[in-house]
Amino acid sequence: METTIHEIRMKEAYKMACLAYEKNEVPIGAVAYLNNQLVAKAYNQVEMLQDCTAHAEMILISSLMERFQSKYLPNVSIYVTVEPCVMCAGALKWAQIAELYYGIKEPKYGYSHFGNLLHPKTKVYSGFLEGDIQNLIKDFFKNKR
Amino acid sequence: METTIHEIRMKEAYKMACLAYEKNEVPIGAVAYLNNQLVAKAYNQVEMLQDCTAHAEMILISSLMERFQSKYLPNVSIYVTVEPCVMCAGALKWAQIAELYYGIKEPKYGYSHFGNLLHPKTKVYSGFLEGDIQNLIKDFFKNKR
Repeated sequence: METTIHEIRMKEAYKMACLAYEKNEVPIGAVAYLNNQLVAKAYNQVEMLQDCTAHAEMILISSLMERFQSKYLPNVSIYVTVEPCVMCAGALKWAQIAELYYGIKEPKYGYSHFGNLLHPKTKVYSGFLEGDIQNLIKDFFKNKR
Repeated sequence: METTIHEIRMKEAYKMACLAYEKNEVPIGAVAYLNNQLVAKAYNQVEMLQDCTAHAEMILISSLMERFQSKYLPNVSIYVTVEPCVMCAGALKWAQIAELYYGIKEPKYGYSHFGNLLHPKTKVYSGFLEGDIQNLIKDFFKNKR
């Protein structure tokens, strides 16, 4: 099967998740593309910062807004390894991003359990690199026990 | 009618909302109490930072977590002038705060339109200083038009 551009981009998010894993953070990573260019990367830093708001998506959004000096990101596509939580979905809604791609569903904390919390303009796609992302998460929590 | 302790505390949040107003930000303020002591204050800084995540509650939570080096705030009571949005409710859930007091309902963006997004342990109270808070918001948007 041919590797799609979205799988290649999700691989970049996955690499960020691996960095989180190495730093003993819940391994979730995110990247952003604008005009087909990679413009930002982030990974979960909740443990390092001891800050429950320091999810990969939140750090990614804030860094993009600082860089572009804009509180909206209407042309940005975001790739994140795991379905965003309610907090991150709320932030993505304010940002009005163009596209959200996430790797795997989050069975407990995923925003979709609470309805569509995203902006009506945001297109959503899921199911990328599911095996790799699931294994990374499973490994992480297995080692925690 | 006697002024309650919650009205006194909400007045502190209202003062922060007034600071936001002066800086041409949507006038929303928040404060936090721990063991009956005021431990943090914040106001909306979305315009100044050009960052859609810079809501009063988010800034408040991050500053509390940095101060106490804890990613949970189970004994903290938060007072915010306006009902939190979905993003902020999600953050308050992760933080597991003890109590949320908000002044007025948010008719469009309030989290409660999407169900109870807060932590089951968090107690919620609303309806404080409603006249003052409503007037401040109305004034702000009147001047914007």
